[in-house]
Amino acid sequence: MNVFDPQETAFLLHRVVGIDRLLQTPRYAHLDVETLDGVFDSAAAVAERYFLNHHRISDTEEPEVVDGRVVLPAAVGEACHAYVEAGLMRLQQPLDDGGMQLPWSAAMAVASFFQAANISTQAYLTLTAAAGNLLAKYGTQAQQQRYLEPMREGRFFGTMALSEPQAGSSLADIRTAATPNPDGSYSITGTKQWISGGEHELTENIVHLVLAKIKGAPAGVRGISLFIVPRYRVEEDGRPGADNHVRLVSLLHKMGYRGITSTILGFGEAGQCQGFLVGEPHQGLKYMFHMMNEARIGVGLSAAALAYAGYRHSLDYARTRLQGRAPDAKDPATPMRPIIEHADVRHQLLRQKAFAEGGLALALDCAALCDDVETATTPQAQDDLLLLLDLLTPIAKAWPSQFCLEANSLAIQVLGGYGYTRDYPVEQYYRDNRLNAIHEGTNGIQGLDLLGRKVHAGGGRALQLLGERIAATVAQARAAAQSAPADTAAALTAHAQQLEQATARLAEVTAHLARLGAQDPRIMLVDSSQYLTLFGHTVVAWLWLRQALAAQAALNAGAGVREAYYRGKLAACRYFFRWELPTALALADVLVTPDDVILALDTEGMAP
Amino acid sequence: MNVFDPQETAFLLHRVVGIDRLLQTPRYAHLDVETLDGVFDSAAAVAERYFLNHHRISDTEEPEVVDGRVVLPAAVGEACHAYVEAGLMRLQQPLDDGGMQLPWSAAMAVASFFQAANISTQAYLTLTAAAGNLLAKYGTQAQQQRYLEPMREGRFFGTMALSEPQAGSSLADIRTAATPNPDGSYSITGTKQWISGGEHELTENIVHLVLAKIKGAPAGVRGISLFIVPRYRVEEDGRPGADNHVRLVSLLHKMGYRGITSTILGFGEAGQCQGFLVGEPHQGLKYMFHMMNEARIGVGLSAAALAYAGYRHSLDYARTRLQGRAPDAKDPATPMRPIIEHADVRHQLLRQKAFAEGGLALALDCAALCDDVETATTPQAQDDLLLLLDLLTPIAKAWPSQFCLEANSLAIQVLGGYGYTRDYPVEQYYRDNRLNAIHEGTNGIQGLDLLGRKVHAGGGRALQLLGERIAATVAQARAAAQSAPADTAAALTAHAQQLEQATARLAEVTAHLARLGAQDPRIMLVDSSQYLTLFGHTVVAWLWLRQALAAQAALNAGAGVREAYYRGKLAACRYFFRWELPTALALADVLVTPDDVILALDTEGMAP
Repeated sequence: MNVFDPQETAFLLHRVVGIDRLLQTPRYAHLDVETLDGVFDSAAAVAERYFLNHHRISDTEEPEVVDGRVVLPAAVGEACHAYVEAGLMRLQQPLDDGGMQLPWSAAMAVASFFQAANISTQAYLTLTAAAGNLLAKYGTQAQQQRYLEPMREGRFFGTMALSEPQAGSSLADIRTAATPNPDGSYSITGTKQWISGGEHELTENIVHLVLAKIKGAPAGVRGISLFIVPRYRVEEDGRPGADNHVRLVSLLHKMGYRGITSTILGFGEAGQCQGFLVGEPHQGLKYMFHMMNEARIGVGLSAAALAYAGYRHSLDYARTRLQGRAPDAKDPATPMRPIIEHADVRHQLLRQKAFAEGGLALALDCAALCDDVETATTPQAQDDLLLLLDLLTPIAKAWPSQFCLEANSLAIQVLGGYGYTRDYPVEQYYRDNRLNAIHEGTNGIQGLDLLGRKVHAGGGRALQLLGERIAATVAQARAAAQSAPADTAAALTAHAQQLEQATARLAEVTAHLARLGAQDPRIMLVDSSQYLTLFGHTVVAWLWLRQALAAQAALNAGAGVREAYYRGKLAACRYFFRWELPTALALADVLVTPDDVILALDTEGMAP
Repeated sequence: MNVFDPQETAFLLHRVVGIDRLLQTPRYAHLDVETLDGVFDSAAAVAERYFLNHHRISDTEEPEVVDGRVVLPAAVGEACHAYVEAGLMRLQQPLDDGGMQLPWSAAMAVASFFQAANISTQAYLTLTAAAGNLLAKYGTQAQQQRYLEPMREGRFFGTMALSEPQAGSSLADIRTAATPNPDGSYSITGTKQWISGGEHELTENIVHLVLAKIKGAPAGVRGISLFIVPRYRVEEDGRPGADNHVRLVSLLHKMGYRGITSTILGFGEAGQCQGFLVGEPHQGLKYMFHMMNEARIGVGLSAAALAYAGYRHSLDYARTRLQGRAPDAKDPATPMRPIIEHADVRHQLLRQKAFAEGGLALALDCAALCDDVETATTPQAQDDLLLLLDLLTPIAKAWPSQFCLEANSLAIQVLGGYGYTRDYPVEQYYRDNRLNAIHEGTNGIQGLDLLGRKVHAGGGRALQLLGERIAATVAQARAAAQSAPADTAAALTAHAQQLEQATARLAEVTAHLARLGAQDPRIMLVDSSQYLTLFGHTVVAWLWLRQALAAQAALNAGAGVREAYYRGKLAACRYFFRWELPTALALADVLVTPDDVILALDTEGMAP
């Protein structure tokens, strides 16, 4: 059972996302395709051996507090140890610092294996990597020496501590306070909630990256600073020392994603809690957004990875489970057939494939855009890439966390009653995946971000840049149709036209809403989640057309034993354009019709 | 917190479904509206006191086998006892037999309270009621005396035992065998799976209604007979006696719906298992379908009841939780507002309301149709009503189990991170509700039933009858628009036109598919689930227009303190017609476009 598949990853990265272009840049000149694929294969082996092995245990043996200490299954610690030993904490570390200096997109491809194998256990490690990336970018050399290096060694793990009980999505309203001390440190007081990995004994120390307000700071998000707050103070020799007064108030108990501790933390309640400012005061949100934007793409990737895991399980089941007969073969004396022969099961599998592989392509494409931003050779190119990346980030987070959850529901449905039991993993994927629409900014927040900010960025340049890329794919599809077999040529031509029309329609809807927004932002934003769905489906249609083009190119080149696989890509692309894009486009007509229900709603009457 | 609401039920039953017409029939002449509402109120009190009280316990204290006996939380037994004591097992029992002789629709309204309060515990009782209804219809007087009366007394509970491990959805392939004994009984051997309530110690005995094949019977579904198979043989004095060799092979452990035992049962393994034929040999499926059709409507109702419970929780949360500010009020010094003020949260609430109350209306309307069938005064009227009921039954089962699950997901989303924790009940509703798309025939089976059989029944008469009823509602809406305020008049007129067009489009799609089916049923049925969605949304749009008409009529009559509530109905109706019906209608265009992906799929290529 492949719940993740390096061959699928290789197709997406090399042939669709095109990360090989990064290998032409000076930063990644030390890499080649074979090296990358070798990293993927060895990471996949670690994921299978040390993470997949306790997938169910992560769910059934939830973290608990025993005698004041958080207890986890032994397999979690073993997995983290194996991950560190395999060098996977050093994927992005600079070469001259002893790391592998991989592109982030390659690191994300690796992450997707671990997300599929064990979403909870990998979260301790990817949170640490994300915190490490932030310190690598904004921390001082001394801070990096003291906190980042032990994270890379796996001695310290990291967290991001943003939310508070009274301010879930509203960071402007956080109350955690930072008071300057004479030695340049700060005293931190307050409460944080939903902090993943906020307490455990997997490592010697935990490095919390905490948003707090320095006394006298401006109100709202402009007054937020970022602090390193270790659980234990770090001595001069680098070892953890005295308690830094970060108290575990309680563990939270979730529907899924149970293996990683979700915590409420109290800072500085019983004694001084020292925090160390990262960068400049009041710039904390900017720094954190560097981490959060990567985290958002990571959330989308994990949603897709879980969808892929469920897809492969249900595909395997559908190929072997015998049940029923064809509609035109009702004689009960004839043998039953594998359920994959039933049309409705094929729908359920193709829809999963369309969502899972579409989601993987979307997240990896955004990850590669991050790499492009970092390796851009001119400021103008970098600005453009950043605009495009910022535009796509809310989609990369929200779209998979909505539709890849639906994929997990379909996986259950393929297995029927068995899928609903805890004897099969598909129900756990469904429960685990339900978090992804909530954390790192709810999908509602992503819709507001997209329609309220991102599509208008650069005076509309972001949308124009996306349109240019889509137009290039459309042109490629028309060109490819020239040399494709008749059946595929007709499909590619039709897809190209559909995508062109959808993109034009999206631009019209956007312009219409922008005009409304000039008068009243409330009217513009009233249906922002539905706008995000329309936008997301259009983007994923684009990614599916790119997958189809890559598959057809491979077929043209002579695919050998992989021929069926590439034809499967063409089929999934057709499925998306047949069923998904048209139903999403129906939203466009509603979006340009004035709202007559939401803004004027009398909420008193919602129930007797 | 009202997770169910007799006032909502009263609105739907009296003003939308119109069950008061039943009170004009001789069978229900002993009832009046006040009596019915009194039954609802007292049943609601039982549901709140004895069922809602252990909602979470039903999830956390799953049934387990201890020393060979199934152990349940004490609250389950107490609840069942209170239910029986309140006379709720006798709701449908004939008057002259000591019962209340209520219409089934009224009994279902009562059931919906218990479904919302505790889906698992009520299942022991509603399964028993359903088994009892079957025996009341098809059992001999002696069988009724021996098995039915103790069920009404709550001394015996009932099950329906259809599925087998190798034949989940495919009843033609069941293997359980019945061998005639000289005394007229049968010896039953075989294995049944997914039997809810298949083992417990809540009652003295369990009456399994088992599908089995008598040796020499025709192959397939035409060779299936129905048997009463008690867990303990029943002595002449009515008391349970010797073990009848129905062995609990194992309990199944599910994602949700955990409080009712789901079992694998072995019949006749270690000794003779006696079964008693119900009705004629080989007619078992026909009898069972009487129960299954009611059960399918019951599944739809329970999906809607769970959606309603989640809706009310999230509504309550949204009214009190403070978070964020308006898009045009970004000053962080202004106070935060209740999240119900945010447009996206309103979407999430209205969508839940549209699905939950639409689903309740659909299930109750079908239940009242069952009553109409029973009270019809001419064979022609009865035939017509049965055609219409049969047409709507797969929709009543599948539509709520798909969209009311989505409602539960939205309830989680409104609560954000809190909704994902087990501290709030919304995540449990979501897990519990996920079963409903699977049991009593998966939704895929319902789609095949609808498009493969029901829409063609009576040479298209079923569809014609539905069309006539919808046309009548459309005409009422146009008439009501004449006397409604301008705003509502415009909405009603637009809804009437939309519904008329959707119904016409549905008829076109159906005729198109029927033509295809004449050539090849595989081609007709390839997208049957998507057809069911289109059909379901059209039917629910009809039910929403009926709700709007009832609300407007109440407003015209002077609604007093209930004015806001009726306006809420108008708003939810607008929401459904604005967002739901158009996106479902987009499926129609796809359904009439030839399939180019499902039937020709090379399934080898679905993964690398």
